[in-house]
Amino acid sequence: QSVSARKKSLKHLEPCRRLVLYYHDLLFDGVNVANATSATAVNETKLGNFKLGKLVIFDDPVTENSHLLSPPVARAQGFYFYDMKTEYNAWFAYTLVFNSTENKGTLNIMGADLMAADTRDFSVVGGTGDFFMSRGIATITTEDAQGIKYFRLKMDIKLYECY
Amino acid sequence: QSVSARKKSLKHLEPCRRLVLYYHDLLFDGVNVANATSATAVNETKLGNFKLGKLVIFDDPVTENSHLLSPPVARAQGFYFYDMKTEYNAWFAYTLVFNSTENKGTLNIMGADLMAADTRDFSVVGGTGDFFMSRGIATITTEDAQGIKYFRLKMDIKLYECY
Amino acid sequence: QSVSARKKSLKHLEPCRRLVLYYHDLLFDGVNVANATSATAVNETKLGNFKLGKLVIFDDPVTENSHLLSPPVARAQGFYFYDMKTEYNAWFAYTLVFNSTENKGTLNIMGADLMAADTRDFSVVGGTGDFFMSRGIATITTEDAQGIKYFRLKMDIKLYECY
Repeated sequence: QSVSARKKSLKHLEPCRRLVLYYHDLLFDGVNVANATSATAVNETKLGNFKLGKLVIFDDPVTENSHLLSPPVARAQGFYFYDMKTEYNAWFAYTLVFNSTENKGTLNIMGADLMAADTRDFSVVGGTGDFFMSRGIATITTEDAQGIKYFRLKMDIKLYECY
Repeated sequence: QSVSARKKSLKHLEPCRRLVLYYHDLLFDGVNVANATSATAVNETKLGNFKLGKLVIFDDPVTENSHLLSPPVARAQGFYFYDMKTEYNAWFAYTLVFNSTENKGTLNIMGADLMAADTRDFSVVGGTGDFFMSRGIATITTEDAQGIKYFRLKMDIKLYECY
Repeated sequence: QSVSARKKSLKHLEPCRRLVLYYHDLLFDGVNVANATSATAVNETKLGNFKLGKLVIFDDPVTENSHLLSPPVARAQGFYFYDMKTEYNAWFAYTLVFNSTENKGTLNIMGADLMAADTRDFSVVGGTGDFFMSRGIATITTEDAQGIKYFRLKMDIKLYECY
């Protein structure tokens, strides 16, 4: 006899924990050392005109409201790269590192950034510390994009597995 | 008193969902802009003769049968790199992006591509949309490899956690 | 009516499986082809003085005791990169590939390496083979660091989901 794998209903499933956070990416342009929080580590290739191949490594501030200069409650450490030849599209993997009075620990996140969509979902694949063993979904919205120098993402993080 | 962690039997465990899909990688050679779906973003190092360090970024078509030109049911967006000095071996992380009438959503996948083995297993570490919170195993087989220009992987995706 | 997501107590939670392993990274310096097990694929950027942007790809031996030359019980295949402009800090994603009489299969791991902390936690986000569908935490300690050429990490791997 076989054991059936875990199958649950997704209807009306409520998160066991939810955080709305803002990710600010300030790209290094060769001069802005004091302000920049990310840098291009790999240059784009010649496949298409949408930066395919460009890889950016970041240690970006994460805030509880949308203001870049409000006090960060976490850092987002990881990378993204552009991956499409016919439009802008990116792929992300990163860790949210919390070190505030409220939260200590990390959330590990990855997913495709389908930039043409109003919102897109990354997977929260693990957590540590106060987020021990968490899993969930981070729904991403681009809130601001000033050329290549600055962009801001709203992350609506819904955890569905909490310990 | 301690709470024991979740321990389940793996004997005869049946997937709650299964998909067999084909991944086609057509590498950019500097000329084939129209056909190529991936590009070398980082060149190989001089450690060994098996391309260690070469990193390829892709937005590859994924089909339900093995034919490259059959209509894609998903895109595979992510990267792989070669990582061994004594033989060919790679490491993958990517998102399957489904946007068909049948499925909308993503599966996030990562793992070591032990190319010498007939089959190898990647982890499906998360999912979104129709694959909300899914986890499982993707068993990979190389079906075709034409030099460095084209290769095809069969992905036998077995989900064991479904919501 | 809504279904509440899984919420468990983390108090006194015991791992269902535990492994203590040692990761040895021997970086290629252009000459040590015979010994090196990792290589710099991407050079550091000019943002700060802590190698931000440097990306290393590895196929490193993993042993059961701290000696570099003791027989490996696994390989660690993946990459790390430096990501901070004000101090040394890294980000890792890799697969532990087991191929011993005791264990066959893989564990997939990712997380922020907060090098200033005595210990830091990565997420074990999936497993295959003998580690089928496993999840857990890998607590990392730097045990030795000889310049940029060699470092050793102790990995205390605690699995809390076992099948």
